[in-house]
Amino acid sequence: MKNYGQDTDFTPQWIETVPKQNSFRSIFKWGDNQAFKNPSKGFLKVIKQQLNLTDADFTITKNTGDQTIKETMPVNLSEANLANLEKIVGKENISIAGYDRLKYTKGKAMEDIMSLRQGQVKDICDLVIHPRHKQDVKAIISFCHDQKIAVHVHGGGSSVTFGLDCPKGGVTLVLSTHMNKLISFNEINQTITVEPGMMGPVYEDLLNHAQKKLSANKSYTGGHFPQSFEFSSVGGWVVTLGSGQASSLYGDASDLVISQEYVTPTGSFKTLDYPATATGPKLNDIMKGSEGCFGVLVSVTMKVFEYLPDNDRQFAFMFPSFESAVAAGRQISQGRFGMPAILRISDPEETDVAMQMYGLDGGVMDKFLGLKGMKKGRRCLVMGQAEGQRAFAANVLCQVKKTCRKNKGFFLTGYPMRKWYKGRFSDPYMRDALNDYGILIDTLECSVTWKNLHSLHKTVRKVVKANPHTICMTHASHFYAQGTNLYFIFITAMPELAKFKIYQQSIIDSIEAAGGSLSHHHGVGRMMAPWMERHLGAQNMEVLRAIKTHLDPNGIMNPGGLGL
Amino acid sequence: MKNYGQDTDFTPQWIETVPKQNSFRSIFKWGDNQAFKNPSKGFLKVIKQQLNLTDADFTITKNTGDQTIKETMPVNLSEANLANLEKIVGKENISIAGYDRLKYTKGKAMEDIMSLRQGQVKDICDLVIHPRHKQDVKAIISFCHDQKIAVHVHGGGSSVTFGLDCPKGGVTLVLSTHMNKLISFNEINQTITVEPGMMGPVYEDLLNHAQKKLSANKSYTGGHFPQSFEFSSVGGWVVTLGSGQASSLYGDASDLVISQEYVTPTGSFKTLDYPATATGPKLNDIMKGSEGCFGVLVSVTMKVFEYLPDNDRQFAFMFPSFESAVAAGRQISQGRFGMPAILRISDPEETDVAMQMYGLDGGVMDKFLGLKGMKKGRRCLVMGQAEGQRAFAANVLCQVKKTCRKNKGFFLTGYPMRKWYKGRFSDPYMRDALNDYGILIDTLECSVTWKNLHSLHKTVRKVVKANPHTICMTHASHFYAQGTNLYFIFITAMPELAKFKIYQQSIIDSIEAAGGSLSHHHGVGRMMAPWMERHLGAQNMEVLRAIKTHLDPNGIMNPGGLGL
Repeated sequence: MKNYGQDTDFTPQWIETVPKQNSFRSIFKWGDNQAFKNPSKGFLKVIKQQLNLTDADFTITKNTGDQTIKETMPVNLSEANLANLEKIVGKENISIAGYDRLKYTKGKAMEDIMSLRQGQVKDICDLVIHPRHKQDVKAIISFCHDQKIAVHVHGGGSSVTFGLDCPKGGVTLVLSTHMNKLISFNEINQTITVEPGMMGPVYEDLLNHAQKKLSANKSYTGGHFPQSFEFSSVGGWVVTLGSGQASSLYGDASDLVISQEYVTPTGSFKTLDYPATATGPKLNDIMKGSEGCFGVLVSVTMKVFEYLPDNDRQFAFMFPSFESAVAAGRQISQGRFGMPAILRISDPEETDVAMQMYGLDGGVMDKFLGLKGMKKGRRCLVMGQAEGQRAFAANVLCQVKKTCRKNKGFFLTGYPMRKWYKGRFSDPYMRDALNDYGILIDTLECSVTWKNLHSLHKTVRKVVKANPHTICMTHASHFYAQGTNLYFIFITAMPELAKFKIYQQSIIDSIEAAGGSLSHHHGVGRMMAPWMERHLGAQNMEVLRAIKTHLDPNGIMNPGGLGL
Repeated sequence: MKNYGQDTDFTPQWIETVPKQNSFRSIFKWGDNQAFKNPSKGFLKVIKQQLNLTDADFTITKNTGDQTIKETMPVNLSEANLANLEKIVGKENISIAGYDRLKYTKGKAMEDIMSLRQGQVKDICDLVIHPRHKQDVKAIISFCHDQKIAVHVHGGGSSVTFGLDCPKGGVTLVLSTHMNKLISFNEINQTITVEPGMMGPVYEDLLNHAQKKLSANKSYTGGHFPQSFEFSSVGGWVVTLGSGQASSLYGDASDLVISQEYVTPTGSFKTLDYPATATGPKLNDIMKGSEGCFGVLVSVTMKVFEYLPDNDRQFAFMFPSFESAVAAGRQISQGRFGMPAILRISDPEETDVAMQMYGLDGGVMDKFLGLKGMKKGRRCLVMGQAEGQRAFAANVLCQVKKTCRKNKGFFLTGYPMRKWYKGRFSDPYMRDALNDYGILIDTLECSVTWKNLHSLHKTVRKVVKANPHTICMTHASHFYAQGTNLYFIFITAMPELAKFKIYQQSIIDSIEAAGGSLSHHHGVGRMMAPWMERHLGAQNMEVLRAIKTHLDPNGIMNPGGLGL
């Protein structure tokens, strides 16, 4: 008899070694090469139970991607073109090495990782270029426009939508190497202008230490903390319409952008940088979310906020049902007292998994919650953080508490939130550990109005669960008066790429059919591209195509991205 | 010797009669035909002083526009075209009468009024159409596209930028006649969908009485109150990028729009209505501010807010200088405690005029303020209103007070704010009274970053004041963390239209040169069109032209609007 989910002493031999140089693993492994995060004992138990696995399934790692990448791969660019591009940036800033070309054209989608684990090489660029500044970008775009060479941009590389693929080959511009600098800081306007390749932690560190590093009077925050924060770039946030974990207060990346400077095949421009204008449709808006299909972002001016971490106030509640938790979330978002920066509602399955992960399942806390009417399989965890001026944050906390209690929420103190906060960027490391044992963990997400939320949640869960032995955890984490997002995490043992693709498509179909957007903050890339025409409508796509044709008549900019 | 500004008992014989039927005056007169507002004794005294006028200058009215408009004017549309358009909407919904054609193609810019007072008729449409519904609009646009007939849209008619002019003749669609209906109200999503011709007061009344009129659980507000509120339409707010007096909390019209439905010459579409999405550049954004140049807005979904007027908290302060008042305004906007809904900073001249208007000049209050270091010619009035959930509004008031006091502001209670609030929509009536005596009163406005504010204020004032005997009152009234707007009101005796045009151009030039946007909330129309290419940059204009060419290849939609 198999020991499904039994509480054995067995611990898998998680791989905790730095990936071999030039290996496929060194490309797909999340984040820091020397950092690892393995499922807790509690989490592993849930996985074994739900996925119908035994300790034996965690004894042999597979497809670990340790094989070495070939140094040389065919280059579909003429010698003359290579020489001309080299002339622009210098020999030290180009590479045709197989490793580099693969590294900078693969993102972090489950399929990227599955195919890299199997040693597959496809849709890579012919040449990696590290432009030094916008003049380099101008020269490159001009040359590639003339020669009809496809151009792709690599920001932080955390795309989960095949945003970096190069199905037509061509060049990939890596912006994080050189184009990662501060351009200017304007304290009176509370704006910062940076090159797009600046990475999240560098950006936030500059702002947090603005007094020392920017000669400012105060310290600041950018307010943008996607889960990929440590490995994503400021430019990437803007061109993909990302959202941070604190977006309910600070806004999505789209709300944070004051102005942008682009190099396109038909010209360069900077958008206006007024706080608001009534001078026709705004080019700043038109370019946001263009995912490299219209041009290359070469500088961006963002809003910043006074940094007041001492005022942060955490909270967590348990609700008897998803309905009551969502009602509280909606009432908070419509409450006219300002928004908490972070707000998260876990659905019953995510809540139960969390309880098990933290070993709270079956314990005193579990029994206590049961007595309070918070039953397993129905109860929902809600947590968050208020930020801002001291009395503002205190009032947000006070109103959140009132609203939660009115909806039968039971206050759990701020402890669960503080615990989540500490590990908020490290969960992606766990994917590598699970993948090593053939366990797939992936996510799909959408935005949805309050009205459609529950039917969408039920519909999509049904489709996810149609695959037997699958965990489906869902949370809402970005709140608006008109709705929220739903983020679906599914875990199952499905090592076959082809089967996975069909599964994934069925989930996306169900999201769209149930009234969800194709994406709340992951972007479109090439993953959602096939749905775009139907989702936006033909007229909408034609407008995007008209803009594309105008700015990029030869179709060299990120071909196939956005479905354009 | 002339009695410049002397405190005489003289009161001009202000015209307080309903304009004659079919007269030019009945077209240009502001608002309600039976409503009038004359300058107070104090204000008249200021005007006489500053404009170097005497009582004698207020004895003979001129260009009162009482002449009757010709019934018949040449129609540049073929009989066949007229018949076909009549077939679409029915005889009762079209008009070729001179009066109607003039009425619906003139806005409320100073030049509109000056030319109407002189009995001038130009740039009018050939045919006025009152479409009944979007199907009518579709049929009209399709026909006009085929026949290359120019199409213009009349919302509320309060344009101050020649937004309604028809330099190529053609048709004007009046949306307020029939297309003014509620389409749906969605309380759970806090959105309302209306036809674009619904007027401000009808819209706000529906929401304020949502329990009774919309079977809602709560009452709501749209949060949008431009000075033209009573005579502007919801659709007009959106297509011109308007801002309400409470925009600092509720957002500009642009922020309030969830989705829009358009009829364009190349097709009809509705934009997505998710609270936020990452599915590429948003068509909802691309269409906002398109001023009828891309297509006709036929329905619009707006955010609404719980209506909590009992929590409103008024405040007013006097500051020793414009610098200290602006510093307080900036610190409030960057203070991270939420924004007051209304915030207004009057510059020294506007403050002094206000003191004189209300008869406070030279009185006890004046002396008291003088003792506090608030000297005439330097002191600045700041006032506003906090709104929202009770404790939120109370904290905003508390933080505003703290910030103002830190910047040497002296609290004047909420009285001045309440006084302003009562008359906030009625000041435009005064223009007619002053114009009757040949006194021009006009406004230009822009947005500006905090960094550029003071130099822009000085520069523009200098240009306005280069015309002798001119009052120039300036205020900031829409606040953002990154900047605000500056609204210049100038009053002078300048009856010559040609001279005024040159004067106006010099002011716009100075705004642009000093780093202001061409408009914060008046829009572009045809007034700002000549500046657009330089202001936005050629590349930006080309993108707008590309969208225009795609949606309107025959160039029939509001030709010349936005400079397209």
